[in-house]
Amino acid sequence: MNLQQLRTLSSERVDSYLKTSLSTYQAANSLHTAMLYSLFNGGKRVRPMLVYASAQLFGPITPLTDASAAAVEAIHAYSLVHDDLPAMDDDDLRRGQPTCHIKFDEATAILAGDALQTFAFEMLSDASLESAATQIQLVQTLAKASGRHGMVTGQMIDLTSVNQTIDRQTLELMHQHKTGALIKAAIKMGAISAQCQDPKALDALDGYAHAIGLAFQVQDDILDITSDTQTLGKNQFSDEDANKPTYPKLLGLEASKQLVIDLHQQASEQIRPFAEKGKSLVELANYIIHRNH
Amino acid sequence: MNLQQLRTLSSERVDSYLKTSLSTYQAANSLHTAMLYSLFNGGKRVRPMLVYASAQLFGPITPLTDASAAAVEAIHAYSLVHDDLPAMDDDDLRRGQPTCHIKFDEATAILAGDALQTFAFEMLSDASLESAATQIQLVQTLAKASGRHGMVTGQMIDLTSVNQTIDRQTLELMHQHKTGALIKAAIKMGAISAQCQDPKALDALDGYAHAIGLAFQVQDDILDITSDTQTLGKNQFSDEDANKPTYPKLLGLEASKQLVIDLHQQASEQIRPFAEKGKSLVELANYIIHRNH
Repeated sequence: MNLQQLRTLSSERVDSYLKTSLSTYQAANSLHTAMLYSLFNGGKRVRPMLVYASAQLFGPITPLTDASAAAVEAIHAYSLVHDDLPAMDDDDLRRGQPTCHIKFDEATAILAGDALQTFAFEMLSDASLESAATQIQLVQTLAKASGRHGMVTGQMIDLTSVNQTIDRQTLELMHQHKTGALIKAAIKMGAISAQCQDPKALDALDGYAHAIGLAFQVQDDILDITSDTQTLGKNQFSDEDANKPTYPKLLGLEASKQLVIDLHQQASEQIRPFAEKGKSLVELANYIIHRNH
Repeated sequence: MNLQQLRTLSSERVDSYLKTSLSTYQAANSLHTAMLYSLFNGGKRVRPMLVYASAQLFGPITPLTDASAAAVEAIHAYSLVHDDLPAMDDDDLRRGQPTCHIKFDEATAILAGDALQTFAFEMLSDASLESAATQIQLVQTLAKASGRHGMVTGQMIDLTSVNQTIDRQTLELMHQHKTGALIKAAIKMGAISAQCQDPKALDALDGYAHAIGLAFQVQDDILDITSDTQTLGKNQFSDEDANKPTYPKLLGLEASKQLVIDLHQQASEQIRPFAEKGKSLVELANYIIHRNH
């Protein structure tokens, strides 16, 4: 599967799964609307692509993989809604659109984020998937990656790092938690959803995810200073303005670009054993280092 | 088991389970501290008591029941932290202590709430519980009760009802979602954790939970106008000040008190089939209507 095929398969399947799952309940109107708005705002669906690309290494795509992709994306969407809040990053623009609390209000954004998180675990525990042993592994993997062991701790380190001088180790620790953990979870959940239990394959995928997770973030930092607001769909220099630590600040722009290339190399090496089947994961890694937004 | 025994067993077991589970990871310091602060702030542990009282109807207490009680309490704690935020109810006092965003700051309170929610699902999916089929039922029950099907929708209705005239049906719908859903989940999760699959028993427990959930809320509304700030541990007249719809406003104080008595009667009838084993559930219902804070 090439990148374009993966992107089409991934967004069609995950969008349809999310819409069907959301439609099973008539929630209070503005909550439902705000959840839909945050889930369908032109996101690149990178994490679902990772889930599907990983799953297809081991067999055909099943509803367990759809549920995994949808759950990871719901967690990602919730984290963006809460991250944009005035008390957090205070961003008014996301993917070229008003952020959730600007479009609705702050209370609605808090609740929509809360409900999106729960929605992830609701989908993974759906009885109709009839695979309790696999499902509970998926729930555990996602909970570990997104809560105090992962993403939320990354956001906390991020918040406390503003206006601070931090070293490379702390910056890497922050990113490993803030974005890396969920990217690793996406890759792992794809494999688990396809019943992969081979520790060697899981290790290789973990190494791949580690490298592209970090590359993704370094590239984000680079784009913040080299791209423009319209291309980014969010304000250029938003990290710079918030006085946040970034790789270009710590290493310089050229060294940061070299780091992305090195990480890409590491990621590709991990995928080599999967041969032709790993093609979409290799192309995903290429996409991450060549994207401009 | 009488109420005092239930209270002791419940708080000892759930506090120990929460502490042990939280200690398994060194989260960013202020996040960890804020989570601990919100979990151990003198809460009455009513929901864990419901979990244990329900479970002991069907057999001895197991770690699955502890995980259920801890997860329900973590969800309750997260909801209070987010509910108190300036953009929501804007409360500075909770159980006689500064609320989370006053003690720490708003960003920390948002993240601590987020992480407490994830923590609930992390505990329920712990591999060492080795009961995937039961665990996935517990995850689904809690997700349905606390997200867009339940608690969060109740909070949304609550927010949109401020300064509105709403009828009794809407008020009841709000409470069924906002507090009733989690109380029902506590009772159901207790039974599931003890491997109860008897539909008649589950129905009776659901009827009990429905009645005490509503009684709990009506009593809350009554206490808001008849108790005082020191006894309540939160500001008296906080509903009144926020111009929120309440039962005393809608039905009058005397009719509201009568409603609590009627609901208590309904709850007791549902528990009758459990005979002596149901004693602690009956006493819990008594406690709910006689409590003064």
